[in-house]
Amino acid sequence: MKAYLISIGDELLLGQTVNTNVAFIGSALADINIEVIKSNVVGDNSISIINEFKLAFENADLIITTGGLGPTHDDVTSSCVTEFFNTELVLDEKILEDIKQFFESRGRELTDLNRQQALIPKISTPIRNSKGTAPGFWIEKDGKIFVVLPGVPAEMREMMRNYVIPELKIRNTSLIKTQRLILQTTGIAESMLFDKLGNLDEILGNAKLAFLPNQYGVKLRITAQSESESECANKLFEIEQKIRAKVGRFIYARGEELLEETIGKILTERNLRIAVAESCTGGFITSRITDISGSSNYFERGVVAYSNAAKVEILKVSEDTLQKFGAVSQEVAMQMAEGVRAISGADIGISTTGILGPTGATFYKSVGLVYIGYCDEKICYAKKFLFGNDRIINKQRASQAALEMLRRNLLRIPDED
Amino acid sequence: MKAYLISIGDELLLGQTVNTNVAFIGSALADINIEVIKSNVVGDNSISIINEFKLAFENADLIITTGGLGPTHDDVTSSCVTEFFNTELVLDEKILEDIKQFFESRGRELTDLNRQQALIPKISTPIRNSKGTAPGFWIEKDGKIFVVLPGVPAEMREMMRNYVIPELKIRNTSLIKTQRLILQTTGIAESMLFDKLGNLDEILGNAKLAFLPNQYGVKLRITAQSESESECANKLFEIEQKIRAKVGRFIYARGEELLEETIGKILTERNLRIAVAESCTGGFITSRITDISGSSNYFERGVVAYSNAAKVEILKVSEDTLQKFGAVSQEVAMQMAEGVRAISGADIGISTTGILGPTGATFYKSVGLVYIGYCDEKICYAKKFLFGNDRIINKQRASQAALEMLRRNLLRIPDED
Repeated sequence: MKAYLISIGDELLLGQTVNTNVAFIGSALADINIEVIKSNVVGDNSISIINEFKLAFENADLIITTGGLGPTHDDVTSSCVTEFFNTELVLDEKILEDIKQFFESRGRELTDLNRQQALIPKISTPIRNSKGTAPGFWIEKDGKIFVVLPGVPAEMREMMRNYVIPELKIRNTSLIKTQRLILQTTGIAESMLFDKLGNLDEILGNAKLAFLPNQYGVKLRITAQSESESECANKLFEIEQKIRAKVGRFIYARGEELLEETIGKILTERNLRIAVAESCTGGFITSRITDISGSSNYFERGVVAYSNAAKVEILKVSEDTLQKFGAVSQEVAMQMAEGVRAISGADIGISTTGILGPTGATFYKSVGLVYIGYCDEKICYAKKFLFGNDRIINKQRASQAALEMLRRNLLRIPDED
Repeated sequence: MKAYLISIGDELLLGQTVNTNVAFIGSALADINIEVIKSNVVGDNSISIINEFKLAFENADLIITTGGLGPTHDDVTSSCVTEFFNTELVLDEKILEDIKQFFESRGRELTDLNRQQALIPKISTPIRNSKGTAPGFWIEKDGKIFVVLPGVPAEMREMMRNYVIPELKIRNTSLIKTQRLILQTTGIAESMLFDKLGNLDEILGNAKLAFLPNQYGVKLRITAQSESESECANKLFEIEQKIRAKVGRFIYARGEELLEETIGKILTERNLRIAVAESCTGGFITSRITDISGSSNYFERGVVAYSNAAKVEILKVSEDTLQKFGAVSQEVAMQMAEGVRAISGADIGISTTGILGPTGATFYKSVGLVYIGYCDEKICYAKKFLFGNDRIINKQRASQAALEMLRRNLLRIPDED
């Protein structure tokens, strides 16, 4: 089964919205062995949309569209679908009931505009939307499947998970099986990782390996194909062992797990609690930690000590040290980590202090300079990092380095490159 | 000039990477009146890539590709470009020098793999990369422009800003001018906004309006076309006044400005300092505030008081109040805001406490319940919000609601819907 994704919306061509939907859908389809052959964007224009529908219908077995289902005048997907399939819109009572309940539960008033969203193409099966008002549609014609989903990511995701993927699983039966494995590394550059792995053919056999770098590290994606699922799994298992033998200490997770999830699992298992003192990262580390449900079990508190006063008053950093070494120093990073650990009674304290840029550099301290501190009951130290000149990326890299320093200490992996 | 964007990489079809590049490029081209007619994704496969090059070359005047320029074996864009243009790769000494310096400045070792990145197609002009190692290329042939950029967002952006956009501006001279205006609203639903605006034709004349909702609010995008730039600007100005007359108090910014930037400007202008006490948002509010360069001038400190102990010890929330009303209550939100204001000496304190989910609900308090507190020298209050059932979206919505509450108080806009 070959899939063709169509994202609808001028905002995508004009660059006013980042298209996160195709990544979600691509990944969900890959998991059930459906290959995405195309992923195209088209504007809010009926002629272009219908042309794209034709192209998709000729070239693929499964077409999934997102966007253009909202309540306002610029949303034309429904009318394009009815025109393309030569059908009409009819009112669906169940969907209307969903919409009424959605507004009731939020204490909001139902408008005529919202009521119109219960209209769906006659030849389609509606897909209910538990997170919003626009329903999706599922159409089967000439042995092909045409799925229409809203563009709001949370709504689309819920509908993919609860309806589209289960329905597709029933219908897709291919002979060649594909399995993929993601290994997530951090703290090592792409080219260094490539060098350390050495002869790739020896590791991979007929499997494939891709390097996917971003500001949090480099993902390794291994793809194995075979006639049986178990053979794919065996191949992947063998390759994983070979890769781990060479670069294992840089790998923090399998699959799409985030470093903050990895950390959460280890802390939960060990029954340890942490506290965080941030200067330059400004709350981003605690925000990442608390993105994970259940983090209240191991995260005690965070202090965003942006001013020197906050460092002294809350974290008990010595004024002398601040005077002598400056706020961006190894000494202050250590005192911050020790301080937040002491006041919170947590087992571990971590800290950051640095210059993320673009301003703030001095003759001795350049943009990108960050110290990260780590303290537990046995050791207390701070490490120096030199990142680049982009404020947001520096924040992301510094938060990742801090979480990785925590991971390595928890797992007693030597903390050096 | 019509543009065609090609994003290269299996990770985009497999959904392992979100494609942020096309949004950036689309937006940059829209700003200089170049229309993007297509935005397609293609995998790391030479045949598909070259086919897509052909299609693009037939249909557009400007082709911009991103991705596939890395140092490893799965990066095939350079070889596809040389094949498509029937040329060869040659070593560029300046680029090699850039790469050497890049590694030197980071204290890293230069590998042979990195050295190979100084090879560029003979018929191209190299585009230097100040944030990474892979250069881009600029090719002009048969009156068409073909631009090849790396896929790493920070590198691509820098090259677009410093080289591609300035070069395109010189070459693009169209007769019909297009101007767009974005007005950013928050705290009002899309359908309510539509209703409040009333008769759109009366507001717009022959201009166009799109509603772009996300978890931070609804963007209004107005597009005006005319033969002169000044006429476009006048039209947009008139429309903006009409829209502001109806929904002005929900508009926090023009253009792509973020609410945290808006807040930063007002606080800087008024010479006011804020402090933040977060429970459920876990540091996300302070992280957003400190994303803005210069925030140290108005942001004093943040406390992520996840545990009750932290609320009592640092923020001086009363144990009685916690006992009587629970941590998720109007009373605690007010005490947190007042507490962080008092200990920091800041002019304003804001706070959050709530249940973001998926767990943590009780019989009386459901997932999505959040109290947001605001205190300055004159007033201190907390407001109740009911968000949905998605943890991350709730965090985003709660942080936006808190910043909007701050904005409305700063501008003395009545804080009610």
